[in-house]
Amino acid sequence: MLAGEIMTKAGELFYERGYGATSIRDIAEAVGISSSTMYHHFTNKQEVLFAIVSNFMSDFVEATVPGLRDRTRTPTERIRDCVRTHLRFSEERRPELLVGNPIRYALNAEQQRTGIGFQQTYHDAVREVIEEGCATGEFQVEDIDVTTMAVLDMLNGVREWFRRPGRLTLDEIIGRYQKLVLGLLVNRRLGGRPRSPAG
Amino acid sequence: MLAGEIMTKAGELFYERGYGATSIRDIAEAVGISSSTMYHHFTNKQEVLFAIVSNFMSDFVEATVPGLRDRTRTPTERIRDCVRTHLRFSEERRPELLVGNPIRYALNAEQQRTGIGFQQTYHDAVREVIEEGCATGEFQVEDIDVTTMAVLDMLNGVREWFRRPGRLTLDEIIGRYQKLVLGLLVNRRLGGRPRSPAG
Repeated sequence: MLAGEIMTKAGELFYERGYGATSIRDIAEAVGISSSTMYHHFTNKQEVLFAIVSNFMSDFVEATVPGLRDRTRTPTERIRDCVRTHLRFSEERRPELLVGNPIRYALNAEQQRTGIGFQQTYHDAVREVIEEGCATGEFQVEDIDVTTMAVLDMLNGVREWFRRPGRLTLDEIIGRYQKLVLGLLVNRRLGGRPRSPAG
Repeated sequence: MLAGEIMTKAGELFYERGYGATSIRDIAEAVGISSSTMYHHFTNKQEVLFAIVSNFMSDFVEATVPGLRDRTRTPTERIRDCVRTHLRFSEERRPELLVGNPIRYALNAEQQRTGIGFQQTYHDAVREVIEEGCATGEFQVEDIDVTTMAVLDMLNGVREWFRRPGRLTLDEIIGRYQKLVLGLLVNRRLGGRPRSPAG
């Protein structure tokens, strides 16, 4: 798929040099195609950016949301899996995240709406699991909306600072974040079912 | 101070239109000065951006770090104050945060180092309070470095979604985040001194 190859190379260039410093001609050169072949697939740089962002977000939602909605499993199990998938996915497809790039300013209003739609789907699925966990008594949170944002911000923050190789492996980070997130959701100060200290 | 006025207007333009879409001439026009007066203070747009960013960060460090280092108060009290100051400062000076702008790509290497230096000073002060709290038994965390990053990411995340007026006031958000952050730091699963449920 030439479109896929263009997106991969463009993503790498945006990630290395920044979106603003990359021209559509740079992308064509990196792929090894002519500008006219390039324009056959994408009419401008913004379209390439949007294709990368929406492809990433659509895959991310597909990887996380069905598990979050799987009511055969407990909210705790689903949150634990969600933390793992979120962090693993963000790391494995790091270039597509385009950290530091002015994606918000570069996309047009309709493209931004599509992106926000994917974010909302994921956000809502996480929120629902937290709500379910509160209903079953597994979780105790003061404010479901605020706690959902705190959890998502914590998980999204990792991409900004985690680098391999480092002091910790990705799996070690995942283990620590599973406990941190559950620590936010199981706030014994707010009451809830008593548990053993090992609970 | 004309330099200060230039920084304020430039910050507003960067925030509204994006850094890339704002020219130095736009800034001069917004302030109501000629380009040559403008160039007397800043030789290019990058310098204006750096002045805004470093001024903000220097003030932020001044507002937070002395309190974090005040050993006459408990780690819990210092964290609680730090959450308040962090969130209040970020909200009151929101335009200077330039959310969504490609600051990393726009600054040169030396300017980036200065910015990272401020971030590091704040990070280290937060980390030390968490370490002290673990030493006194007030906090129990599995991994001080990872928990520090989680706390900072949670607090930095708020600027991306909090808007006034909304369901919650800034003070309500602050109250919730004080509890969420202390929830991360007081992880009863990891042991520590027993407390009453109201502790």
